Amino acid sequence: MGERYFQHMFANGLTLLAEKMPGMQSAAMTFLVPAGASTDPIDRCGSATVLSDLVLRGAGERDSRQLTDYLDSLGLQRSSSVGVHHTRFGSAAVASKVIEALPTYADIVRRPRLPGDGFSAARDLALQALAGIDDEPRQKLMIKLREWHFPSPYGRNTMGKKEDLEKLTLELCRADWGQRYHSRDAILAVAGNVNFRELREEIDRHFGTWNGHAAGEFKRMPPPGRFHHEAQKSEQTHIGIAYPSIPETDPDYYTLRLAIEILSGGMSGRLFTEVREKRGLCYSVWAGYSSLKGSGSIFGYAGTSNDRAQATLDCFIEELHRLKKGVTEAELARAKTGLKASTIMQGESTSARAGAIAHDFFMRGRIRTLDEIKEAIDSVTLEKVNGYLKAHEPGPFTIVTVGPKELKLPL
Amino acid sequence: MGERYFQHMFANGLTLLAEKMPGMQSAAMTFLVPAGASTDPIDRCGSATVLSDLVLRGAGERDSRQLTDYLDSLGLQRSSSVGVHHTRFGSAAVASKVIEALPTYADIVRRPRLPGDGFSAARDLALQALAGIDDEPRQKLMIKLREWHFPSPYGRNTMGKKEDLEKLTLELCRADWGQRYHSRDAILAVAGNVNFRELREEIDRHFGTWNGHAAGEFKRMPPPGRFHHEAQKSEQTHIGIAYPSIPETDPDYYTLRLAIEILSGGMSGRLFTEVREKRGLCYSVWAGYSSLKGSGSIFGYAGTSNDRAQATLDCFIEELHRLKKGVTEAELARAKTGLKASTIMQGESTSARAGAIAHDFFMRGRIRTLDEIKEAIDSVTLEKVNGYLKAHEPGPFTIVTVGPKELKLPL
Repeated sequence: MGERYFQHMFANGLTLLAEKMPGMQSAAMTFLVPAGASTDPIDRCGSATVLSDLVLRGAGERDSRQLTDYLDSLGLQRSSSVGVHHTRFGSAAVASKVIEALPTYADIVRRPRLPGDGFSAARDLALQALAGIDDEPRQKLMIKLREWHFPSPYGRNTMGKKEDLEKLTLELCRADWGQRYHSRDAILAVAGNVNFRELREEIDRHFGTWNGHAAGEFKRMPPPGRFHHEAQKSEQTHIGIAYPSIPETDPDYYTLRLAIEILSGGMSGRLFTEVREKRGLCYSVWAGYSSLKGSGSIFGYAGTSNDRAQATLDCFIEELHRLKKGVTEAELARAKTGLKASTIMQGESTSARAGAIAHDFFMRGRIRTLDEIKEAIDSVTLEKVNGYLKAHEPGPFTIVTVGPKELKLPL
Repeated sequence: MGERYFQHMFANGLTLLAEKMPGMQSAAMTFLVPAGASTDPIDRCGSATVLSDLVLRGAGERDSRQLTDYLDSLGLQRSSSVGVHHTRFGSAAVASKVIEALPTYADIVRRPRLPGDGFSAARDLALQALAGIDDEPRQKLMIKLREWHFPSPYGRNTMGKKEDLEKLTLELCRADWGQRYHSRDAILAVAGNVNFRELREEIDRHFGTWNGHAAGEFKRMPPPGRFHHEAQKSEQTHIGIAYPSIPETDPDYYTLRLAIEILSGGMSGRLFTEVREKRGLCYSVWAGYSSLKGSGSIFGYAGTSNDRAQATLDCFIEELHRLKKGVTEAELARAKTGLKASTIMQGESTSARAGAIAHDFFMRGRIRTLDEIKEAIDSVTLEKVNGYLKAHEPGPFTIVTVGPKELKLPL
């Protein structure tokens, strides 16, 4: 992998990824544990979310307070979140401190204390966060759109379900930890000012004897339908549109990405200029690519006043269909420049790179170099984009709206 | 200023700031024009916001579409926003492209076309964004808290007022542009892979003959009161607390910042551990320092379920008062490490540095080096922090709540 990248899979199935970034003082870690919302037990939606909080309430030799104080004493900027596939722990700081914290992250996933009082607090906070969505119609819309677009369990709200959270117990959480916090398919990525050999030895020392259980299989269920309206008294209507697309591993991936960049990249994107700038229909509108393992989707959003909601939806759908007629050379050139510029900016952030190499490995089984990405973007021609768009009509659409009134949907 | 920093004021009052960041391919620009919401004409609140959109709808030789297409063709990641003191234009990209765009930014501020159809669209979007706040109770709370904490015009909602936006005309906007888009007190900062001499020549060429008008004076009016409740049907109550503090230029600034870091930095901050972790009272709580020119404030927020709202407010106020009793050596050590780590991370982002040097110059009349900031943090002792906290009781509090029920306020 050359001087910049490093990849190693340990015998227990844990993969270590690293990227050396010259000139950086910092490093960032992304740690993906295969405990995402899609593998929550069927009647315990939200278990991964409660667990991701609970494992941080004391681990190894340290109780909850000691653990928090210790990690803060290293100056770590920390995060944790639950996605469809993984529970993700992130940290960033001066490089040596990120390395120094690794044994503690081994404690967190391997030797969490999972205390009873911590469980009550963690579950309460999960329930409160869930209730808080009612105050965030935009967030609510995106949650509902995923539920109606993806087959279950992929479309699950990662925050869980109220009725499931309420019947969750400490014992169930402990059992779930035993089941899902394992080394097989875990990915630990570090980017920044790092030494590969030192990093590998450190990971081997603290994670080498971590055990791997096999993950259980789960059944896929189709979403409840393609159209959903969520009544909400409001001055605004929130519109969400989704449709299936190709996975990231498809050879046409950058052809598609550039088409979507033309639709919604920068300020010259079609959606922004047509829906927002020219017609003044709404103050917020975008579309973007989103991927799960093995599949891809296009997601779109528009937030607008109630009286303009129908026109906004119609105009949005019209722009999606207009893609079939092709894009111009100038649009493609701008999209390429924009996408390459983002890639270069990402190459200057240790957190962005740690996240990107972990994502790459999960989706593709390998790290892509920044040069490889730039070359892939450059190799897309106008013929490829227009051929792709002609052959791949957008749809079928899943459409979800949040607001006072149902809209007339496109056939 | 050594090898890394550069500062120059042109005869017309425009200040150029630059920071050379070795190893970066990118550069970022922050351009502060002295047209903030606080200088909106008294009966035209929101004029700066409409203008910040309108000036981008065609400038110099380019119409709206050409301008947008051109800036996107450089791969610029762009932003614009209106704050209390300034209208801010930001860009980031490969360094050479940020430089290449500078003449166009001169067009935008000096030769905008200010077209009629663009005005209608810009005003419509401003009105829609304003109406959208009703769907965002957290954002609404922070807007109201500023209105009730700061003397007018500092507390104004930068998005404007509905009745003022409705009577705004193209002619008024054009006149406002003539009045407020001027070189005196404008600040243009660039950070990243830049050449000082080239940058200075480029700025001189395109902005050197930009004219300066003197800004008008305005009258300060005290806020309407210190306590406000905004009734909103909701499962959640949003609580905002503000109180006056010292300005950034005060010698005790880092003493105070570290105290606030102990209150609300990282995961070991007192608010987070007491209010959220221990008592499980709410899912979101924080406090932070916020500055205007010549004054500083502490702002705090908590979002919680209605039945826990009173306990959350009481606990928040209790934690603020508990600061008087002093902090521990361990708390201070963690706060120092945390604040220094943020400073180091900021030093690796061209956008963060461009914003920081522009802010520094506006607040202090000079750029501070990253080393100076680190030394200032290191020089704070436990005696200083505890002496400061003993001498500066928090308050008087401005308290704003958004939710279904008024809370009992502390005396």
